[in-house]
Amino acid sequence: MACTETPCVISCKAAVAWGPGKPLVVEQVQVDPPKAMEIRIKVVCTSLCRSDVTQWESRAQAHFFPRIFGHEASGIVESVGEGVNEFQIGDHVLTLFTGQCSECAHCVSGKSNMCQTLGLERKGVMHSDQKTRFSIEGRPIYHYCAVSSFSEYTVVHSGCAVKVEPTAPMEKICLLSCGVAAGLGAAWKVADVSKGSTVAVFGLGTVGLSVAQGAKIRGASEIIGVDSNPLKFEKGKAFGITEFINPHDCGGEPIPQIIKRITGGGADYCFECIGDTEMVSTALQSSSDGWGLTVTLGVPKAKPEISAHYALLLSGRTLRGSLYGGWKPKSELPLLVDMYLNKELQIDELVSHNLPFEDINKAFNLMQEGNCLRCVIHMPKAK
Amino acid sequence: MACTETPCVISCKAAVAWGPGKPLVVEQVQVDPPKAMEIRIKVVCTSLCRSDVTQWESRAQAHFFPRIFGHEASGIVESVGEGVNEFQIGDHVLTLFTGQCSECAHCVSGKSNMCQTLGLERKGVMHSDQKTRFSIEGRPIYHYCAVSSFSEYTVVHSGCAVKVEPTAPMEKICLLSCGVAAGLGAAWKVADVSKGSTVAVFGLGTVGLSVAQGAKIRGASEIIGVDSNPLKFEKGKAFGITEFINPHDCGGEPIPQIIKRITGGGADYCFECIGDTEMVSTALQSSSDGWGLTVTLGVPKAKPEISAHYALLLSGRTLRGSLYGGWKPKSELPLLVDMYLNKELQIDELVSHNLPFEDINKAFNLMQEGNCLRCVIHMPKAK
Repeated sequence: MACTETPCVISCKAAVAWGPGKPLVVEQVQVDPPKAMEIRIKVVCTSLCRSDVTQWESRAQAHFFPRIFGHEASGIVESVGEGVNEFQIGDHVLTLFTGQCSECAHCVSGKSNMCQTLGLERKGVMHSDQKTRFSIEGRPIYHYCAVSSFSEYTVVHSGCAVKVEPTAPMEKICLLSCGVAAGLGAAWKVADVSKGSTVAVFGLGTVGLSVAQGAKIRGASEIIGVDSNPLKFEKGKAFGITEFINPHDCGGEPIPQIIKRITGGGADYCFECIGDTEMVSTALQSSSDGWGLTVTLGVPKAKPEISAHYALLLSGRTLRGSLYGGWKPKSELPLLVDMYLNKELQIDELVSHNLPFEDINKAFNLMQEGNCLRCVIHMPKAK
Repeated sequence: MACTETPCVISCKAAVAWGPGKPLVVEQVQVDPPKAMEIRIKVVCTSLCRSDVTQWESRAQAHFFPRIFGHEASGIVESVGEGVNEFQIGDHVLTLFTGQCSECAHCVSGKSNMCQTLGLERKGVMHSDQKTRFSIEGRPIYHYCAVSSFSEYTVVHSGCAVKVEPTAPMEKICLLSCGVAAGLGAAWKVADVSKGSTVAVFGLGTVGLSVAQGAKIRGASEIIGVDSNPLKFEKGKAFGITEFINPHDCGGEPIPQIIKRITGGGADYCFECIGDTEMVSTALQSSSDGWGLTVTLGVPKAKPEISAHYALLLSGRTLRGSLYGGWKPKSELPLLVDMYLNKELQIDELVSHNLPFEDINKAFNLMQEGNCLRCVIHMPKAK
């Protein structure tokens, strides 16, 4: 690489997935310069989210390999494409797996984060030209969620990154790029949890614990955590969980019955953070009639259909989905970074593991084993 | 009957259903005096709601026969039980198929009409003592929804009736006792339809047309009606319907696609007023991502499970149930009566048929044939 004024192709290391479930291979890849309205980022830290693993495992996505996963990352702007005024080389950024064009009907509405231009990208290419910016000897490598942070360098649309305070520690705030923000937003923006209310959280991963933290900050009086891994319970207390239910350890009593007993009729808010559509129905049943709100955040690995008896809804319950916590990410994520810097948010405790980039497959193993909250992957310091 | 000061048993005519789907028989029945906190009502008018027909047809309810149906009625208080201070003999009332005790956690909350004491009664008896107030020669006759208005006299809990302005025409306001209120409340209280928004209503019966009326009054810019009966379309215009979709007449184009085309992306609000769980899924698909709200009002005749692809919810849609339009009926129904008297509400146009009590089976036939909005059944004037 001998690239000075005009951005040129960068050759660098990236962890390439060659097929569903196949261990990643750290390869030398070519990363194109950013096109108009795009930026190229030197990734500093990227944490592994459950969705990366789910999509990597999925045979339904087999035609999108070889692929570079990763969508929860912090980095530094390396170069900017034509027309980009918002970013400068050296800016610290978080990547956004669903972007914000700030111009479409959804972006200008006060009520949606489903950007019509830079929304969730499902075809493994860039939004603008439906092509990739990665290749190996001319062979295109698919992107993931228009972020692909398991690479030393990546190209994203300028609407799919947000500038953050440069003093914020990259190895922690990367969690705000997806999981932590998704959980906090579900509690604050989507459910609008109220003081003194009762909350049940199904699944105590990073997202579930962040929902709990959000509910705790809002002053919920009771936060019930449901998880089959007893190791998650102790951790949960630090995030506000007041009662634990292990489905394998409740003597056959149905979960909704236990939650109704604890809350005196059903939780005011239930959050499904596992990605299990059966559990969405359990959550609905666990919520109070008259006003109970169930928020579904998870992406299911199997059975994509949510099913619920009509009478659960008719008796005054609501079911709502939450993607990225409802945040308009460019406008709102910097506020979360500020809260973290002001010690108003816990993130550090969610980083259960740190690994160098070359050990990225260990991160996948840790997530599959179920004892990992977030494993932060540290990219090499020097190119 | 020679009953002066203390209320005694009344012998009067009632339309008794002896089995599922069997034509009603007008029989001489005995109606007990009201017990503590109950009132006995001389029914003046009772309109036939689709739910009466559905429950009468249902073999799943076969053990609750013989039964007296009817739950949408106006009448005059004939006598009051011990402890009743709220009503006096001669008061004009509407019956409430789900009551309001005004004391339970739900009644005192600002957010629920699911009274924990006088909620939907499903066992065919009175809430207080789980017994009936109707009998024929000592044989108990089951109630329906704790109202049973297909009788010259009926007994209801004082929390299951509301006093109304005596100048209001009984033969019209009876529709506010269920169907019209259910539709208006779904639009106003449950969905809170906003000015300039787009609305799709699935099923243009009395409930659906009342949703449309509610949306029109709120200033919705587009109100799409979906119904397979073309006769309902002309009527719909008077209630605010601006576009019609007949599923049998759209050349195979899926309904969600048509609605997305008309609204430019999906309706802001969808209302399922048929009682078809498959249609709930269609409604969800027809609503806008980001903010679309689907309200389900219907009681399904078959397949009680609502099913929806998780991605519909994850992309920012909400599914909510609405029973009785979310009204706290004792507190709020009189306001609707006032609106009607002030000509701010259309009810008259929903009364498609009037029949004397002895022809009640014709009303059932009309509803089954699908060309009836509301048939008002007029009870005999003199006992």
